[in-house]
Amino acid sequence: MLEHIRFDGECLALLDQRILPTAVEWVDCRTAQQAAEAIRAMVVRGAPAIGITAAYGMALAAARGDDLTEAARVLLASRPTAVNLRWGVERMQATPVAAWAAEARAIHREDIAINKRMGEFGADVIAGAKNVYHHCNTGTLATGGWGTALGIARSAAARGPLHVWVGETRPYLQGARLTAFELQQDDIDCTLVADSVAASLMARGAVDAVLVGCDRVAANGDVANKVGTLSLAVLAKHYGVPFIVGMPTSTLDRTCPTGAQIPIEERDASEVLGHKGVVWAADVPVHNPSFDVTPAALVTAWVTEHGVWRPPFPPAT
Amino acid sequence: MLEHIRFDGECLALLDQRILPTAVEWVDCRTAQQAAEAIRAMVVRGAPAIGITAAYGMALAAARGDDLTEAARVLLASRPTAVNLRWGVERMQATPVAAWAAEARAIHREDIAINKRMGEFGADVIAGAKNVYHHCNTGTLATGGWGTALGIARSAAARGPLHVWVGETRPYLQGARLTAFELQQDDIDCTLVADSVAASLMARGAVDAVLVGCDRVAANGDVANKVGTLSLAVLAKHYGVPFIVGMPTSTLDRTCPTGAQIPIEERDASEVLGHKGVVWAADVPVHNPSFDVTPAALVTAWVTEHGVWRPPFPPAT
Repeated sequence: MLEHIRFDGECLALLDQRILPTAVEWVDCRTAQQAAEAIRAMVVRGAPAIGITAAYGMALAAARGDDLTEAARVLLASRPTAVNLRWGVERMQATPVAAWAAEARAIHREDIAINKRMGEFGADVIAGAKNVYHHCNTGTLATGGWGTALGIARSAAARGPLHVWVGETRPYLQGARLTAFELQQDDIDCTLVADSVAASLMARGAVDAVLVGCDRVAANGDVANKVGTLSLAVLAKHYGVPFIVGMPTSTLDRTCPTGAQIPIEERDASEVLGHKGVVWAADVPVHNPSFDVTPAALVTAWVTEHGVWRPPFPPAT
Repeated sequence: MLEHIRFDGECLALLDQRILPTAVEWVDCRTAQQAAEAIRAMVVRGAPAIGITAAYGMALAAARGDDLTEAARVLLASRPTAVNLRWGVERMQATPVAAWAAEARAIHREDIAINKRMGEFGADVIAGAKNVYHHCNTGTLATGGWGTALGIARSAAARGPLHVWVGETRPYLQGARLTAFELQQDDIDCTLVADSVAASLMARGAVDAVLVGCDRVAANGDVANKVGTLSLAVLAKHYGVPFIVGMPTSTLDRTCPTGAQIPIEERDASEVLGHKGVVWAADVPVHNPSFDVTPAALVTAWVTEHGVWRPPFPPAT
């Protein structure tokens, strides 16, 4: 399995996801500020991976004797939507500072174990599926390892033949750049498509399940996730295709009653106007929301590390 | 209004839509073969513009005394889906060869007049709309001038304030490159979005109508159009948004009973793997259908140059 987050106590090295798969380079972070900047700039992305990075960022601040309140502040401010960021920072704050390096490593290790358990539950849910459609990147690169929604595909592929339709995921192309790369590394059969191809695939019965991750889930089951998720959910409902959300329970925000309360990050116009310095669009105004909110009514199953959940969700343990 | 197809009797000059809006260059065609190659390579695209180009291509062959059967063959083979190609070639073949230059010019001129009539009928249909969503490019660049679906937006904008959401239209980015450029030239208020943003716009009531063109419409009203159209149609149905097809009657294929009989062109993987020599994706298999088929049941109105039609369509006159 690909390694993409390394921590030696003084340096947090992150595989630079902005330039994959064309180059494999690492970004070194030695302060919480640098870790926060790496999150903001999307060197690392994906809700669980962001939570792990934030935990390591706190550990960097502790190791250096930096201002820990300020470290928490900059990390929490790095991306507005992901609840894991807060979860990671708060779990560190609930631990004695002397143990922060060990705690961050434990968070990382536990995330991989959580994903593998989720993968098995999810593989049960989609048992018999030959073709799944996956949006964005929710794999190893989005987590500590294995993946959430893509971890379900990985677990299912370990049981028997599976083909994954990889939605390219405009504008940031996480599907084209990261998911396709990961699946290829793992020899899992996949085909890349533009996001708008999903409808015709479902119309001709070529999709047995849609697998998506989540950046924040409200208490009522509404799912904030990468923009395009809502479109897939409406299509899946129309065509009778199961719509499966891989949801580590850390991503459930019990304090947030519905999706309407989840802030949606607006990202830079340059992501839509071109790619990596190549500008292809006319110079017009752009609306570039990073996420959308899928109402709970469109979701078939919320697959967690504890099994399949549906709202009202079980109380926190 | 932008000019993009010029014909002087011996040379057909086409504004190169592959490199707009970053560069404004023309491609000269002196033979039917060159016109066919320009269609195949997408120097010119859009069903009506392709029909006009094919007509001029036939006129080039006639002016040179080339093999007219061969000219028709290469032009018909240049793109498999657009019915206008056949329509343009067959209309020429039904005319004395000595009059082909004049006939091609008449087809071009008539197309602009048709679009302006369609625009007025369409503006009636969406009367009161403040925000419309438009897919691909169906404007001046896709036609002889004015446009079909985008012509409806243009006619509506001439009556009162209108804002156009411009879907970028992956993979070939006709919305980002061409529609945004055209609307900017005409001072029509617009905002560019990734295709997958359409769902959240409709969910929050920011779309009063969806406007799309068509590459071929079957006798039962099924619409083959740029990939992504079906997705918008399903979303529009789900959110109760009128879904309007701008359909010049030349695009209606009365010999084709349903959408299931329409061949769907598969284009090169390179369109999805990157853009203009920049490759961003992992090297995986790609499925790149250029079109999809929207069932008639999802369409609110087929707006033609003769008024609003619904299937069963009126007989040919």
